Amino acid sequence: MKNFIAKFLICITLCSIAHAQTQPILNLEKATKIADAAQEKAISENWNVVISILDQGGNLILLRRMDGTQIGSIEIAQLKAKTAFEFKRPTKIFENMIKEGAVHLTTMPITAVEGGLPIFQDDVIIGSIGISGVTSAQDGIIAEAALKAAGFK
Amino acid sequence: MKNFIAKFLICITLCSIAHAQTQPILNLEKATKIADAAQEKAISENWNVVISILDQGGNLILLRRMDGTQIGSIEIAQLKAKTAFEFKRPTKIFENMIKEGAVHLTTMPITAVEGGLPIFQDDVIIGSIGISGVTSAQDGIIAEAALKAAGFK
Amino acid sequence: MKNFIAKFLICITLCSIAHAQTQPILNLEKATKIADAAQEKAISENWNVVISILDQGGNLILLRRMDGTQIGSIEIAQLKAKTAFEFKRPTKIFENMIKEGAVHLTTMPITAVEGGLPIFQDDVIIGSIGISGVTSAQDGIIAEAALKAAGFK
Amino acid sequence: MKNFIAKFLICITLCSIAHAQTQPILNLEKATKIADAAQEKAISENWNVVISILDQGGNLILLRRMDGTQIGSIEIAQLKAKTAFEFKRPTKIFENMIKEGAVHLTTMPITAVEGGLPIFQDDVIIGSIGISGVTSAQDGIIAEAALKAAGFK
Repeated sequence: MKNFIAKFLICITLCSIAHAQTQPILNLEKATKIADAAQEKAISENWNVVISILDQGGNLILLRRMDGTQIGSIEIAQLKAKTAFEFKRPTKIFENMIKEGAVHLTTMPITAVEGGLPIFQDDVIIGSIGISGVTSAQDGIIAEAALKAAGFK
Repeated sequence: MKNFIAKFLICITLCSIAHAQTQPILNLEKATKIADAAQEKAISENWNVVISILDQGGNLILLRRMDGTQIGSIEIAQLKAKTAFEFKRPTKIFENMIKEGAVHLTTMPITAVEGGLPIFQDDVIIGSIGISGVTSAQDGIIAEAALKAAGFK
Repeated sequence: MKNFIAKFLICITLCSIAHAQTQPILNLEKATKIADAAQEKAISENWNVVISILDQGGNLILLRRMDGTQIGSIEIAQLKAKTAFEFKRPTKIFENMIKEGAVHLTTMPITAVEGGLPIFQDDVIIGSIGISGVTSAQDGIIAEAALKAAGFK
Repeated sequence: MKNFIAKFLICITLCSIAHAQTQPILNLEKATKIADAAQEKAISENWNVVISILDQGGNLILLRRMDGTQIGSIEIAQLKAKTAFEFKRPTKIFENMIKEGAVHLTTMPITAVEGGLPIFQDDVIIGSIGISGVTSAQDGIIAEAALKAAGFK
């Protein structure tokens, strides 16, 4: 019996270690759900945007440019997603810090403009979304609406 | 009635002048149709790829990475689409030329690997598609199947 | 005659459908007209500049460097045109926003210096012009004079 | 008198040294003449090309894209001109060397494709021309015709 309990406890420990060695992922299905929600929100507001989504490794998994969106947003949407992913926080946080005086942060390779959000699952980052095309405040509204509608955050 | 015909002829003339200074475009709806066809073909073959589509100006309009696709294909798919767009021809043409001895072409900024196709409408280029993820011959099969299924070429 | 009117109406319908999926373009003739006007204005003021013009896809169609212009303006003129095209607005708007406190915008890949203007036709962007060589205010004067003289805006 | 002659001879020497310290230049007027000749030749053959001209410092002085030219030629024309300028020889020389087996040359940052020519005046390089858009042999024909028509070489 002792032996059994010992084996059981070892198993529990090993299992949690095993768990610690995987990470939740963002697959194309989830990314599509998020992008659909973003596009729906944009259409409902009559806004045109680029939607960009990165996965758990920070690599692009999906990009869509709605008709009429300014071409510059192709790059900006990806950069916002990159910053949100790389620093695990909304790009708006950096925007606010710089606006409040932390101008030295502009020397970092970040895009400090609202519209980029990290995507978390069980407190672990599994990707990010970047929206660009309208005002940055509106870009941010779309990003938040998309994650909420898709069941994140 | 003469008046009506006169107006009609003027309209025709003006329309053709306008046409001579306009170009057909590739919108998100068309791009989505092409990407859906590409994805359907890839799934039917059990292949994983990145699908990248550029518009009539050579600017990215849609990108999708299917689960399990190698990360390097994110860039390669875009580069194949770029080459196909910029030179109005399948990337396979450059691949063949180099294989047959035109090694000097490798000094040009092109991606000479099968899987990139220009998209034409009424003999005018309106964009391009780039596929990467499996063998380049298989990438090419997906690209061709996608354009055919979506009614191009 | 009924037949004729029927065909006429079908033509009108088809033409508008076609139009909805086409865009006006900036050809070399129009670009040359704009560049000539820019150069004429620069000469009249005894200014030396680089004139750079992008087409409806954001791709370079014409560049001219007047004798004596600083070499750095070759790139700056193109970058101003790129920003004006990609964001469909005068570069001066970004310059003003940053001057007025929106320092966080410097983290975006834009060139926020006066002298870049988008070119519109029927409310659709068909290209852009970038001028660099004298003060940015003077660059802006040339860009505006050029578009006006060539019948745009 | 001897003194005068001595001073005179010193002056002659110094003057030639001074001369040796200037270089002939390619101004916008000459570049325009060359570009006009290139365009005329292209039109006469019904070819579409990008014409790119660098000055005595290797810096872009003029670029023109004829309607319908493939977008990739914008960069290729400039790269051919760059190679012709930087190595003071026709790009075709490198193309031939690589075709004849010198494959290792592809590891140099050169564009080894016909269509780029240096421009000489009194045996001194004053710039270069790069043509791209049709076959590289045809690009080369335009480049040569342009320099000849404009009185160079």
